Amino acid sequence: MSAAFLSQTPEFSRGADTPRAFLERCLARVDALESEIGAFEHIDAAGARRAADAATERWRAGRPLSPIDGMPVGIKDIIETIDMPTGMGSPLFTGWRSERDGASVAALREAGAVIVGKTVTTEFAATVPGKTRNPLDPRRTPGGSSSGSAAAVAAGMLSGALGTQVVGSTVRPASYCGIIGFKPSVGAINRGGSHDALSQSVQGVLAGTLADAWQIAIEIALRAGGDPGYPGLFGPASLPPPAAPRSLALLRTAAWERALPAARAALEDAVARLAERGVRVVTRESDATLDAVERAIVEAMPLTRTINAWETRWPLNTYRARDAAKLSGAMLERLAQAEAMTLDDYRAALRRREEIRALFAGLAGGVDACVTLSAPGPAPEGIASTGDPAFAVPASLLGAPAISLPAFEIEGLPLGLQLVGFRDRDAELVATAGWIAERLALAAR
Amino acid sequence: MSAAFLSQTPEFSRGADTPRAFLERCLARVDALESEIGAFEHIDAAGARRAADAATERWRAGRPLSPIDGMPVGIKDIIETIDMPTGMGSPLFTGWRSERDGASVAALREAGAVIVGKTVTTEFAATVPGKTRNPLDPRRTPGGSSSGSAAAVAAGMLSGALGTQVVGSTVRPASYCGIIGFKPSVGAINRGGSHDALSQSVQGVLAGTLADAWQIAIEIALRAGGDPGYPGLFGPASLPPPAAPRSLALLRTAAWERALPAARAALEDAVARLAERGVRVVTRESDATLDAVERAIVEAMPLTRTINAWETRWPLNTYRARDAAKLSGAMLERLAQAEAMTLDDYRAALRRREEIRALFAGLAGGVDACVTLSAPGPAPEGIASTGDPAFAVPASLLGAPAISLPAFEIEGLPLGLQLVGFRDRDAELVATAGWIAERLALAAR
Repeated sequence: MSAAFLSQTPEFSRGADTPRAFLERCLARVDALESEIGAFEHIDAAGARRAADAATERWRAGRPLSPIDGMPVGIKDIIETIDMPTGMGSPLFTGWRSERDGASVAALREAGAVIVGKTVTTEFAATVPGKTRNPLDPRRTPGGSSSGSAAAVAAGMLSGALGTQVVGSTVRPASYCGIIGFKPSVGAINRGGSHDALSQSVQGVLAGTLADAWQIAIEIALRAGGDPGYPGLFGPASLPPPAAPRSLALLRTAAWERALPAARAALEDAVARLAERGVRVVTRESDATLDAVERAIVEAMPLTRTINAWETRWPLNTYRARDAAKLSGAMLERLAQAEAMTLDDYRAALRRREEIRALFAGLAGGVDACVTLSAPGPAPEGIASTGDPAFAVPASLLGAPAISLPAFEIEGLPLGLQLVGFRDRDAELVATAGWIAERLALAAR
Repeated sequence: MSAAFLSQTPEFSRGADTPRAFLERCLARVDALESEIGAFEHIDAAGARRAADAATERWRAGRPLSPIDGMPVGIKDIIETIDMPTGMGSPLFTGWRSERDGASVAALREAGAVIVGKTVTTEFAATVPGKTRNPLDPRRTPGGSSSGSAAAVAAGMLSGALGTQVVGSTVRPASYCGIIGFKPSVGAINRGGSHDALSQSVQGVLAGTLADAWQIAIEIALRAGGDPGYPGLFGPASLPPPAAPRSLALLRTAAWERALPAARAALEDAVARLAERGVRVVTRESDATLDAVERAIVEAMPLTRTINAWETRWPLNTYRARDAAKLSGAMLERLAQAEAMTLDDYRAALRRREEIRALFAGLAGGVDACVTLSAPGPAPEGIASTGDPAFAVPASLLGAPAISLPAFEIEGLPLGLQLVGFRDRDAELVATAGWIAERLALAAR
């Protein structure tokens, strides 16, 4: 059901299809499914049609602005848009307008992308969910915090959508919704105008195919760069071709015992199949550095929570001053945790994170990437929680690029295989992911 | 005319003075001078009085929230405030409301500071001036971009005010207005909710005394920390005591020949007096590392402009999309410069900046700080330009802490002596500044 875009652009060039017609097919999916799925906070169909018509003219004239000219995309509602409100998943900001586009949104428009709407985020991109349901089973969560972005892409309403991740907010919903989730290296995509100013937060992409995901990311980076002071996403102007890894590390993470037995078996089976294809697989039993990394990332979740707490002392304090009743209990708890901390506590957490990052960097000589699960199992039932981010948090702490591939099916529901790469070597990770998707015969290449 | 605050707090404790009475004296200065000086975009006298009354009660009860409880401060209008508009010096944002406080503003309120108003900034804290005049000679510029903050403090309307600096926006107006300017190390003060998201931008403090300046900065850091991922301002909870430097580097900078002969003579005389007090002074002639630094920082201005251009591609592109006629020619030119750049150009500039920073760090073993002018001369006539930032830009590029002390008088107008220290060693620089202010018998200690 994926609205794969890049594969369709030859049709735009020869006039057999148009971005406007493509958009109409997406909007038809929105009309059919949105009332049940609730992926959007705001839809601007008229604006999207105008943008798609302009893209149609450019393709017809042989002058598209970029390979994603005309691509229907959604913007997580934590990121500012000039023509739509930015609600941040909080009643404090319902209808609030920034009067500008975020950096990535402005870049997407410059590349010709069609901004269809704002997708549902959890409260301030943290834990308290919005209304969105998983399109593969509406009784289940789509994951979070990029809930609407993942659901809209999985439902074929959009080709791609922007997410963010500071714990597991891109990889987890991609896994639950059976699509591609790409969380670039820390700092790789300019977060200007995104209201998640945390030191390990990154803007990521949800898409139906690896090619669409990469193209969205690189078109943004070429026009907006990374966060100020960071070199931005490195890589070619179109999808890096599949490349076989020489060696992969099987990263079990601290959550291994919590994963469903069927999930662990599926990953181990996939790894065995890759080994049959000539990939050397190392484990903590066979590699002392990997063992040290496994031991260190036991701290990934508590350390992330400590760092996030201090870094959201503001703005939660000013939000509480405005109206504490409009903050969830989870946010008030996080603020209380922050207010019990000192600046020295935070510094100690930053130092520890740097140590763990340095340890992980030591793996880069021996392996091309790490392979693990994207989540302990498929999307749990209910929408009151967005599920367990335990498998996604290590890459967040590490500032490392991560990709969730829709590789497994457990009890009829999707589960992602997660690849974790090395900082600022995103393109190599994408090339590895492409090769693995081919070898495992995954649909979403 | 300085509204020195900390020196007055013993009076609050024994009831001989109150924060409310202190505020009224400041507001009387506002009433008398604001129509001529134009330091403010917005004044909230009623809110300030309520806050000062609450502070008065706390001092009376012997429970001030901090040493700056009750201090009248101003907020540069590039930083968000929950109760006042944030106009950013641009007609695009006249009356715009963020509905929240910036991180430093929230911290100041938690410390009990009295937020009197929003002070005039140049357009987006860059070059195009606002209405503000220099209180020492209203025919002259107060400097920029923290124009209103410096003028209000110099006019005795406030004890302190927040500024920002990415080129020379704190050190230069401090110099022109005869007050203290403290630009901390890059990342040392949390810039959340400040609309100057540039990699070498820093929030700084303008104040009448070094003690007030330090106290404002450390109270913010203790409550808001630094930028996410940075360790924040290091130093003690009250003014570091004066400490004699063993060695100072006379940093002439690329602007030396542009400085007024009287300014150069004044600095050289001051350096000679410090040498008589036992400070070893090194120059580029006597120190090869310093010579290499002097040669490298010739690039400080063009490199800063290149980095700033790329980093303001956004949001200038979305502002232009909204209404290009409301952007100045200077902003449109900067955007054109950015759009002629590639991401690789930006990466090259970042690498060069890192090289120069590493070179400068090599000085730290041999000297305690660098000493130079804060500006080529006193405030120029006219308010159509905020003057020449050439002496301030090296510390900005270096990410190093800098302090402007009101040390010199040229043609009856103030000129600053600038001290530049080493990254995250702000407290040592403040201690050195205190000792120099004593030895040179400066009023503003």
